Amino acid sequence: MPTFNVDLGARSYPIHIGSGLLQQPQLLRDAIPGRSAVIVSNETVAPLYLQTVRTHLGGLHVGEIVLPDGEAYKNLDTLNSIFTRLLEQRFDRNTTLIALGGGVVGDITGFAAASYQRGVHFVQIPTTLLAQVDSSVGGKTGVNHPLGKNMIGAFHQPRAVIIDTDTLDTLPGRELSAGLAEVIKYGLLGDAEFFAWLEQNIDRLRARDPAALAYAIERSCRDKAAIVAEDEREHGTRALLNLGHTFGHAIETGLGYGRWLHGEAVACGMLMAARMSERLGWLDAGSVRRAEKLLLAAELPTVPPAELSGARMRELMAVDKKVIDGSLRLVLLRGIGSAVVTADFDPAALDFILERD
Amino acid sequence: MPTFNVDLGARSYPIHIGSGLLQQPQLLRDAIPGRSAVIVSNETVAPLYLQTVRTHLGGLHVGEIVLPDGEAYKNLDTLNSIFTRLLEQRFDRNTTLIALGGGVVGDITGFAAASYQRGVHFVQIPTTLLAQVDSSVGGKTGVNHPLGKNMIGAFHQPRAVIIDTDTLDTLPGRELSAGLAEVIKYGLLGDAEFFAWLEQNIDRLRARDPAALAYAIERSCRDKAAIVAEDEREHGTRALLNLGHTFGHAIETGLGYGRWLHGEAVACGMLMAARMSERLGWLDAGSVRRAEKLLLAAELPTVPPAELSGARMRELMAVDKKVIDGSLRLVLLRGIGSAVVTADFDPAALDFILERD
Repeated sequence: MPTFNVDLGARSYPIHIGSGLLQQPQLLRDAIPGRSAVIVSNETVAPLYLQTVRTHLGGLHVGEIVLPDGEAYKNLDTLNSIFTRLLEQRFDRNTTLIALGGGVVGDITGFAAASYQRGVHFVQIPTTLLAQVDSSVGGKTGVNHPLGKNMIGAFHQPRAVIIDTDTLDTLPGRELSAGLAEVIKYGLLGDAEFFAWLEQNIDRLRARDPAALAYAIERSCRDKAAIVAEDEREHGTRALLNLGHTFGHAIETGLGYGRWLHGEAVACGMLMAARMSERLGWLDAGSVRRAEKLLLAAELPTVPPAELSGARMRELMAVDKKVIDGSLRLVLLRGIGSAVVTADFDPAALDFILERD
Repeated sequence: MPTFNVDLGARSYPIHIGSGLLQQPQLLRDAIPGRSAVIVSNETVAPLYLQTVRTHLGGLHVGEIVLPDGEAYKNLDTLNSIFTRLLEQRFDRNTTLIALGGGVVGDITGFAAASYQRGVHFVQIPTTLLAQVDSSVGGKTGVNHPLGKNMIGAFHQPRAVIIDTDTLDTLPGRELSAGLAEVIKYGLLGDAEFFAWLEQNIDRLRARDPAALAYAIERSCRDKAAIVAEDEREHGTRALLNLGHTFGHAIETGLGYGRWLHGEAVACGMLMAARMSERLGWLDAGSVRRAEKLLLAAELPTVPPAELSGARMRELMAVDKKVIDGSLRLVLLRGIGSAVVTADFDPAALDFILERD
């Protein structure tokens, strides 16, 4: 079982990756400092794994909160329902919230942990590929606002992340693909060798080959952890992790949360960024084709939904968190494995991408 | 004009105290790093000072958000209305939120700044005595939940605090007294010399003698800043600042937010803590009488409201943030200027205090 640390000084934490980890009580117990813990899950995941996790918490004051499933519920109302449950059952400031589920459960539980009594402990047990490779590393937590995705939140690091690759056995194929979008992102933005490995192994990943999945998860987490350790609060290089996200968030917000999965929107957004980079003369056509081919092999969308006009996309992108003092910063590509964050681009290239698609 | 720094490493910030500071544009401009700022105030304070502050922000993209006045509005709904306004007007991650008002405006604006886009800049211009000596120092931000006061929030330090003592000229007498409760608290919990000064000068303070008020504010801020610098996240000594607050929060929550002012509830809570300490044999009767006399001279309540039963108070105290792993910790007194945080007390003494009052 690979275990490695995300290096954040006093906030460092271990990520455990492997098969059968949900059957190992000690991994979870070691991450709980107090006498109480609350498992937060959703209606889809709870029937599969909640009782297993609960059996590891003997002797503690334990709560269970089961949320409705879906991005549409990642909002302040759901967050408040968590606070109400925690207060009704008198969970105190030394409680640990355990996020058991995908990215939505992780993001909202993490923000609840960040803000309940100004901060309680937090452990992640991500059960989707996307959550395993993305939202479980780096401490970004939050909820959506009707006017923008992830606009309300906090940086709050977990005490541990436990990734049991067996949970992927029950994951719907569409969600597996969505997770692969974020995996491909790590190759595209900064790890050309990994990108080449993915091109060779995409069929094994789609077929859920356990060894291939474990390798892809570990490499993705290590790539992300290295970037986060360098720039926890996203003042610099961490912004590279947003490759495809400014376009992607506009798609998600524009369609209504949940219509497209986050990973699907990011996949499309990455190819839009690649095409825009090509238009700017920064990226060769062959690299764009490689990116497109890999995304298509992962059964991911590469063109934005027809019902979203270019004008609407632009409007939505203007409220993105990457807008600083009025100028839109985008993550663009100089090559496979070489991304840059910049506001210094010819706006005509953006117009071209938005109008064409 | 006294200016001193709250020493928190990279998060250190200056507190400026003096007469006429709202007329000095540079103090505010120096604290705004980006090109946009939003003044958050309330219906009572905005007509008095908002335009003055706004004139200092020439050249910036400026927003104004005026909240309804009162503790009853310090909740997630009001918070969300701030997010909506910020998003509608496309304020970005480099925006500065300026809290112009009392403790409620400061707490909710601070939490909005902590969580909007996972954190934007924050400046405090407190206009009540209570906010000047308490909520503007230390970075505690948050909102209330119907089941408990300040249960949702974050630690988020301001970039600067600007205390213009002239704003106290327009403060209602009841609010002045409420602020004096927190001033007295600093003497009682750790500064016996200041407590003695307050006994000598309480009439000057009630009469709004500018020199006396300026001295009391500065000494209170310095006392608090010293404690916060030692323990920013309240793992230890910072909990002493909660003297009177566990009893006080129960009163506020039990009566409904806003019936008693926060300072009034804290005053009553401090005397309950003093009486309980006396019952435990930790504090002499003379010291209890000195505390009671000073609070009464400040026109503050010293007995809890008759409509709250001892049983109800106990129930409300059980969800306090000071409850850790099931045991209630209280701030109690060993002398004037000598407080302790402890869960190690005879519960009969607590029963006695709750039943008697």
